[in-house]
Amino acid sequence: MEMEIKKDIYELAEEISSLLEEGRYSEAKKQVNSLHPVDVAEVIASLDTRKQVLVFRLLNKNQAIAVFEQLDFEQQENLLRHFTDEGVAQILNQMSPDDRTELFDELPAKVVKKFLNLLEPAQRNIAASMLGYPENSAGRIMSPHIIDLKEFYTVEQALNRIRRLNPPEELAYTAYVIDAERHLRGIATLRNLVLASPEEQVGEIMNRDFVFVFTDDDQEKAAQIIQKYDLLAVPVVDQEGRLVGAVTIDDAIDIIEAEATEDLHRLAAIVTTEDEYLRAPARQKIKSRFLWLAILLVMGTFTSFVMQNFENVLQSVIALSFFIPMLTDAGGNVGSQSTTLVVRELALGKLEGRYLWKMILSEALIGGVLGVLLGIVAMARVVFLRESLLLGLVLAISVGIIVFISNLIGIFLPILFKKIKLDPAIAATPVITTIVDIIGVFIYLQIAQSLLPL
Amino acid sequence: MEMEIKKDIYELAEEISSLLEEGRYSEAKKQVNSLHPVDVAEVIASLDTRKQVLVFRLLNKNQAIAVFEQLDFEQQENLLRHFTDEGVAQILNQMSPDDRTELFDELPAKVVKKFLNLLEPAQRNIAASMLGYPENSAGRIMSPHIIDLKEFYTVEQALNRIRRLNPPEELAYTAYVIDAERHLRGIATLRNLVLASPEEQVGEIMNRDFVFVFTDDDQEKAAQIIQKYDLLAVPVVDQEGRLVGAVTIDDAIDIIEAEATEDLHRLAAIVTTEDEYLRAPARQKIKSRFLWLAILLVMGTFTSFVMQNFENVLQSVIALSFFIPMLTDAGGNVGSQSTTLVVRELALGKLEGRYLWKMILSEALIGGVLGVLLGIVAMARVVFLRESLLLGLVLAISVGIIVFISNLIGIFLPILFKKIKLDPAIAATPVITTIVDIIGVFIYLQIAQSLLPL
Repeated sequence: MEMEIKKDIYELAEEISSLLEEGRYSEAKKQVNSLHPVDVAEVIASLDTRKQVLVFRLLNKNQAIAVFEQLDFEQQENLLRHFTDEGVAQILNQMSPDDRTELFDELPAKVVKKFLNLLEPAQRNIAASMLGYPENSAGRIMSPHIIDLKEFYTVEQALNRIRRLNPPEELAYTAYVIDAERHLRGIATLRNLVLASPEEQVGEIMNRDFVFVFTDDDQEKAAQIIQKYDLLAVPVVDQEGRLVGAVTIDDAIDIIEAEATEDLHRLAAIVTTEDEYLRAPARQKIKSRFLWLAILLVMGTFTSFVMQNFENVLQSVIALSFFIPMLTDAGGNVGSQSTTLVVRELALGKLEGRYLWKMILSEALIGGVLGVLLGIVAMARVVFLRESLLLGLVLAISVGIIVFISNLIGIFLPILFKKIKLDPAIAATPVITTIVDIIGVFIYLQIAQSLLPL
Repeated sequence: MEMEIKKDIYELAEEISSLLEEGRYSEAKKQVNSLHPVDVAEVIASLDTRKQVLVFRLLNKNQAIAVFEQLDFEQQENLLRHFTDEGVAQILNQMSPDDRTELFDELPAKVVKKFLNLLEPAQRNIAASMLGYPENSAGRIMSPHIIDLKEFYTVEQALNRIRRLNPPEELAYTAYVIDAERHLRGIATLRNLVLASPEEQVGEIMNRDFVFVFTDDDQEKAAQIIQKYDLLAVPVVDQEGRLVGAVTIDDAIDIIEAEATEDLHRLAAIVTTEDEYLRAPARQKIKSRFLWLAILLVMGTFTSFVMQNFENVLQSVIALSFFIPMLTDAGGNVGSQSTTLVVRELALGKLEGRYLWKMILSEALIGGVLGVLLGIVAMARVVFLRESLLLGLVLAISVGIIVFISNLIGIFLPILFKKIKLDPAIAATPVITTIVDIIGVFIYLQIAQSLLPL
């Protein structure tokens, strides 16, 4: 019995690493073949290339495939480079088609072409047709090897067919009932089949109410359906409505996790990459952050233009400049909040039709109230510190207006982006901050100019 | 055959709403009983209370339970208030224990006590013991009604037992093999059982390598294990190692989704609430946003103190103030990026032991490079616009140093928070922005004072 989850994969990696260095291969072999493939993949990820290849060669055939499927693309690519064509062919032919498609996605076209030629004809057809679907579509991550049944099968025949197909865990629990043209007629879960009596017909026990996605639909849509309806898999049909595969829950959970991370990164103006951030090389990390930072920096100088135009105001009351960071921060913070909320709701598909307008109205109200409240706080703070009622008033009014406007900008920008088919998350919070700065400084200095005796 | 997922739940709600208004109850009844419980729950969510109760009364018993489980807490609570004690008892006794515990979690203690008394003794025991586990623990969301088998059962006996237990979909695919003391000995999936021959013993086909969590473990841990090892459920054992339930993948996927949303909200300095943001009342939305905004506003005035101290510098070169928003934004943006990255990695449990130090070193390098690059951009931009080489130099050096320091602050703050057992995400990006402002303005004006001829 494995006592809880492995505590430190790095300890394990060191253990195996020293076994390899001391040439104690049979011990290493025993260990890596007794571990869970997920853990072996993590161990491999933390070894150098030479040892990665060594460990991989020690794995039994089934374990090798399972471990390979769990590795990152770079590691998969790296390992394949060290294998003979025969070794590559063995792995690629036995990988699950969805994992293989994901790998091919990352490889240069030339390499994919070469690899496709190493596949058996049946696998080559599957791989080529999956690569034909759009990027991030359900067709790319579906599993084509699903359990298909006919309505007239008895439950006993159905169970025998499942035994013959010998599906892996992730595909074992949902059977798709099709007609002669492979049109989907219903779904029978393994639970339905096991609980039914052997002589019943599949058509009697199957569920005729089901949801499905098209091959071209977004992966996220498939994942959201699985989550919403508590399914283990959602069937995928082609444009003619013929069943071609299913997206399974293990992929859905990864998609939901990845989308959330992607939103987070975009909101912080980080160009998202497919790879895990932590393992990406420093050069790539700099690249994914620099571009936006530079654009924002240049955009930020527009605030200086605004201030330059009010040079005389600032010159006569230098104290005005002291509160600019506080004001722009307040606007930026409020705008970031509303952007974050809207981006998340948009990602979860919750802002549709009239609900959008309801929210915009409600946010206008919320922004107004927050503006008044924060205006009072600002006034209190300034008066308390500087005892100039007039400057306090200028600040209070400015904070109020800036908060109200920033809140709405934070709402509208992502919605606008979505409408013009851009990713709403690019309306990243730093972008909002910068826009709000320019507007905020203008409002502030305008109000100061009108109210202060200059 | 349901043609794709329901397009607009609000259209459906209006349809049902008018049926109710026109008193065409039997048509409404037919419709709400033929829909998926998830969709009925969404329809109910968009109706007024009177109609909610009406729709609910039209549901068949099984559909009513299924729909009730899909509702939000507030709606559940609201509906229960309109039912007789008998009706409440019927629903609470038949709800799945994990959903019931979640509901009880949200109710006032007095109401929970009353509801507990409405439960049948067996259900009352289950409910009371689940409420005894810490908040957000695996014990709170586990399902206690799992399939338990003994090693000496034949596969046929095991399948018969499963038929007798008649488990719901989410619990049907994993069977837990226990000894006489209910200690977990292995796991057999329904696939294993169906593919095995009827006379084999469960002990021969079960998997003795498995992971589990304790009742007191965090829900997130259970969810992460399910995701990592591609499981449909993870067993939950008590402190004595006895099997008490399982956390299922449908709950895991919701936890992963909720945690990601929570991180996003916290990073935008929004106090997270259990409820969905969109449906929360405006007052609560304002509350969840105002506190942090007010704290940040007051913190922001510290920047004014710093600037006040350099009043003479600013007075003699007023142009210096023009670039303060650009500088503080640059620092804030870089800090937000690194905070977001660290918070996410921490949430995914990827930053442990030496990997943490590796990342800090790598981020110091990245911050340095970004500082130099952005310094050059700032210099180019300023020189291009104002043609003052010296001011450009002051800005370039300031940007470089501010970016480098902000990047490290953005890394360290969440790690520090984690070390002192605070949620790293409270090191929200606005907090970083405000801290970075104060430090940035100081650095900038200090450099200006030393380099410019004042």
